[in-house]
Amino acid sequence: MATAGKVIKCKAAVCWGPKQPLSIEEIEVAPPKAHEVRIKIVSAGICRSDDHVIHGDLSSIKFPIILGHEAAGIVESVGEGVTNLQPGDKVIPLCIPQCGKCRCCKNPDSNFCDKSDMWKFTGLLLDNTTRFTCKGKPVYNFVNTSTFTEYTVVDDIAVAKIHPDAPLDKVFLMGCAFSTGYGSAVKIAKVKPGSSCVVFGLGGVGLSVIIGCKVAGAAKIIGVDINCDKFAKAKELGATECINPKDYDRPIHEVLAEMTDGGVDYAFEVIGNIGVMTSALSSSFFGCGKTVIVGVAPSNATMTFDPMLMLTGRILCGSVLGGWKTKDDVPKLVEDYMNKKFELDGLITHKLPLEKINEGFELLRKGERYALRLKII
Amino acid sequence: MATAGKVIKCKAAVCWGPKQPLSIEEIEVAPPKAHEVRIKIVSAGICRSDDHVIHGDLSSIKFPIILGHEAAGIVESVGEGVTNLQPGDKVIPLCIPQCGKCRCCKNPDSNFCDKSDMWKFTGLLLDNTTRFTCKGKPVYNFVNTSTFTEYTVVDDIAVAKIHPDAPLDKVFLMGCAFSTGYGSAVKIAKVKPGSSCVVFGLGGVGLSVIIGCKVAGAAKIIGVDINCDKFAKAKELGATECINPKDYDRPIHEVLAEMTDGGVDYAFEVIGNIGVMTSALSSSFFGCGKTVIVGVAPSNATMTFDPMLMLTGRILCGSVLGGWKTKDDVPKLVEDYMNKKFELDGLITHKLPLEKINEGFELLRKGERYALRLKII
Repeated sequence: MATAGKVIKCKAAVCWGPKQPLSIEEIEVAPPKAHEVRIKIVSAGICRSDDHVIHGDLSSIKFPIILGHEAAGIVESVGEGVTNLQPGDKVIPLCIPQCGKCRCCKNPDSNFCDKSDMWKFTGLLLDNTTRFTCKGKPVYNFVNTSTFTEYTVVDDIAVAKIHPDAPLDKVFLMGCAFSTGYGSAVKIAKVKPGSSCVVFGLGGVGLSVIIGCKVAGAAKIIGVDINCDKFAKAKELGATECINPKDYDRPIHEVLAEMTDGGVDYAFEVIGNIGVMTSALSSSFFGCGKTVIVGVAPSNATMTFDPMLMLTGRILCGSVLGGWKTKDDVPKLVEDYMNKKFELDGLITHKLPLEKINEGFELLRKGERYALRLKII
Repeated sequence: MATAGKVIKCKAAVCWGPKQPLSIEEIEVAPPKAHEVRIKIVSAGICRSDDHVIHGDLSSIKFPIILGHEAAGIVESVGEGVTNLQPGDKVIPLCIPQCGKCRCCKNPDSNFCDKSDMWKFTGLLLDNTTRFTCKGKPVYNFVNTSTFTEYTVVDDIAVAKIHPDAPLDKVFLMGCAFSTGYGSAVKIAKVKPGSSCVVFGLGGVGLSVIIGCKVAGAAKIIGVDINCDKFAKAKELGATECINPKDYDRPIHEVLAEMTDGGVDYAFEVIGNIGVMTSALSSSFFGCGKTVIVGVAPSNATMTFDPMLMLTGRILCGSVLGGWKTKDDVPKLVEDYMNKKFELDGLITHKLPLEKINEGFELLRKGERYALRLKII
């Protein structure tokens, strides 16, 4: 490749600090070092987690930083020791890596990885440096990925090689939103055929939960949102009915219990609201209902409930990236899509070029609880 | 049988109202009606749940009542339509029945039953009457059982027939304490070989959890209690080490994380203390640690925690009677005991006659967090 081994100059959306718009800059992307991969980003989505950084909600984040963590691209070059990837391979960067060696990776019940930068936020690759510079200053990475750029460099444990025919402008969703929602249903909750489900929050991730419930064969999939405008798409993707808590003068878990012979088999909270988390738990069947928390609550928020809710057999669990072992499972999800196990079109609402990324964030914010997935590159 | 079809006069410990000692009375026990079984109680245990009623902590309980729910006995006579039991059969009354027909019973993941009187506390058999009278007054049943009496009548869905050679003075523990603790480990948590466990609270149920962890092959079983006197027995039954939170000046979950490479695989709260519940959750491994709440918190207590604790893969669940399908599984537990899969001797601390039942409750209370199992008959 003409660029291999050289510094690449390209465009990126740099976040210089909190509470300011992203700035489209020319940056330098150094070649990948040992066990690193330089990727040309083809499609990326924007996510509320990126916006949390822009808002300054994550106090340990270092600036300047290149945000973005949901994307698909093509390997431009690889560093020494990278044997399973080569230039031209289609890939998805992984915001949770899979080192294969840590306690989480070795445990079949976990999909986290000690090498994840989520919650540590060093902003660095595994060798404790970054490959990005802008105006002479180093620029930090975001959660092992950084995808709001034409080129990025990631550690090879944070890349999934996907099918060569995969449509990158669709499967970039496997980097975050779709995997998270879909996996919460099929992998974390393990929704059974004929069961009843409720999904609180009908943004992009919530809709992906619905797709998962449908693929798993749920008989009843109830969408819940305070914005009725979202009901049509939820039904299109698999919801059997949708309800708005504002239409009832009693707690929503009582309404749901009546609709489902005493409570749903599976409840999903996809908002990040602690009150809704307790509603989800309460709406699950007392004998064995399972509740999956998918939404991320604001810092320092606490969930409060009577532990008697748990005693008769309820289960409460969480989900990050849908429980998938990322490097192993993301390529399989891409193939499942290519084999038409599910559709992704309904989850992509806007397509914008990188230069209009701030407009994308405005759309995200205007949508309030909508989680728009924007194809930005 | 000489007594079949007749009213039996016998001794029972009657609870006439809250906050007063139980009273040993002569009662009348009417013959079993259709689908009922009259049982001669041979051995019974006393449990903190019984004491909650005596203390007046359960506001919906009706008096007078015959308490007790952990026992073993012999069928004296059966009502019409009872085909699977006959006089002379050894049995264990079930404080959670198994009707086999309700949503819980039909679901392999639940062990609750719609016919359970736990949390409803009607104090009545399924036909909405009671077979007990004392001094001309009807006396209520307790959670489908009532075992502080020489004879009781229960619905046939609330009786497990056990092996004819079972030692009743040991296996009465299968009616509550042992099944609850042991099942929390092997059935609810599904402890894996080689794993690490922590058990908060080393009373009779906590010790049964330890036995379960040991049988499941856990490599590390840490007992936690603020009373070091309990450590010897915990170690005798399977704890690999015991610690006292009072010996540390930092949160116990931090101590446990250091002892277990980042957190235990399985945490059990066997006290009913909401603060300890959160400690148990925090002490579990962030990637996939499972926490089982076995203890019953005081009425109106709430558990509070940061939902971020759940996001990376922790699981929180509850346990009532260890998740066993009672009618199906209690006989198997009895056989496992007879096949020497585990011991029960260490769990029985005192043996008292029925007349000394108030002394038994005093022992229970003096023991503070000790949950004594007393053979009272």
